[in-house]
Amino acid sequence: MERVDYLPYGKLKIVQSSNVFSFSMDAVLLARFVSVPIQKGKMIDLCTGNAVIPLLLSERSKASIIGVEIQETLFNMAIQSVHLNKLEHQINILHADIKELPQDIKGGEYDVVTCNPPYFEVNNETDYNQNKHFAIARHELFCTLEDVIQESSRLVKQKGKVALVHRPERLGEIITVMKSNRIEPKRIQFVHPKNDKDANIVLVEGIKDGQKGIKCEPPIFVYDSNQQYTEQFKQWYGIKASEKEGE
Amino acid sequence: MERVDYLPYGKLKIVQSSNVFSFSMDAVLLARFVSVPIQKGKMIDLCTGNAVIPLLLSERSKASIIGVEIQETLFNMAIQSVHLNKLEHQINILHADIKELPQDIKGGEYDVVTCNPPYFEVNNETDYNQNKHFAIARHELFCTLEDVIQESSRLVKQKGKVALVHRPERLGEIITVMKSNRIEPKRIQFVHPKNDKDANIVLVEGIKDGQKGIKCEPPIFVYDSNQQYTEQFKQWYGIKASEKEGE
Repeated sequence: MERVDYLPYGKLKIVQSSNVFSFSMDAVLLARFVSVPIQKGKMIDLCTGNAVIPLLLSERSKASIIGVEIQETLFNMAIQSVHLNKLEHQINILHADIKELPQDIKGGEYDVVTCNPPYFEVNNETDYNQNKHFAIARHELFCTLEDVIQESSRLVKQKGKVALVHRPERLGEIITVMKSNRIEPKRIQFVHPKNDKDANIVLVEGIKDGQKGIKCEPPIFVYDSNQQYTEQFKQWYGIKASEKEGE
Repeated sequence: MERVDYLPYGKLKIVQSSNVFSFSMDAVLLARFVSVPIQKGKMIDLCTGNAVIPLLLSERSKASIIGVEIQETLFNMAIQSVHLNKLEHQINILHADIKELPQDIKGGEYDVVTCNPPYFEVNNETDYNQNKHFAIARHELFCTLEDVIQESSRLVKQKGKVALVHRPERLGEIITVMKSNRIEPKRIQFVHPKNDKDANIVLVEGIKDGQKGIKCEPPIFVYDSNQQYTEQFKQWYGIKASEKEGE
């Protein structure tokens, strides 16, 4: 059931499974959006899944990267992916609950915290996908938006960055919960399926104890009016480069 | 110094003066953006200036409209503009401080509250424009964002709408102050000078005691790569129609 796919740009391999977890466009966009230290530093990715974000960040930064995943099946895929790409020297995957991280993961030490959290609130028990793996990745069963931001704020160092990808519907909460956890929202970017459609993805980056003031960056449109990827999206996402690699 | 100009679409006249106050694109965009009752109801526009928003709203709705302006010179211009367009039956301009409205303006009665408030916080006394009229319109000398939202929340009826235009820099505050005043942000739209530039205007509409959940509408780009207005902007703003009217 597991298979090895290529990530955008076509250099990195990733282990995934349609029955358990496949990386999403959202995670790729977050890995492109977040501000990273280039030469050194420490980054940590919460709810890392099959490690798609740590893998992509390794292309942009030499910082050490920790990925934390609560589901054992995904944790095992993440470990395999790191191994396949020979990135053990840079990426370390932990099998843990972000609310109960091991003691050696100390607070206030990380330059960057990223997270592509579960998007949906749990409203009633039958409301979510029957597949347990999907349900945990998509619904706030094991961790809520508040848990993610609280833990991010504890982990990030003073003036360090916390970046999330989420649904625009939740933007109000993201901003208020960030602010009440001393993460000042600083950069925001929306992704729209087309230029005349409402946004369906929002990227937000905040700074621990940063000055207030939000910058709203140019929006990303995924498809043009002919249902083809826009040039802007291809460039952002890495499809063009990936096609070149595959030639 | 005063002159009579036409508003976009070219039907309505407005009194203004470069030395005191001219309507801005921001106000026009807010008047286009806000959801209005068509046939009847009550709307109120705070910090109305020369009544640009009430005038434009009168083209979209038959509801009664109150405009409130603290500066006497602008209040007089607003009165003249309403008179010039023979809209006294629909638009009523008050010379008042929004924090001390007359008793007959009762809370909980308005379907829609709009405001294009001063954008800039007062950081130090020399920080703002020397012209008193501009300073009051642009800087939070007489009312802050918090004053505007508090008063809007008091005036609007249950499930009524509060719509603001502001700078994206202040979005974090807008959302937190709206939420703490029981105005749930529901619709948001960004205006970018060009498709590759950060937004410089944000439009936000909230609902009194609304359900949480934000919709981020398609962005507006003002200029294309040839420094010409985009077709989208012309249509939105009303330039095309206005040119036709002028033929």
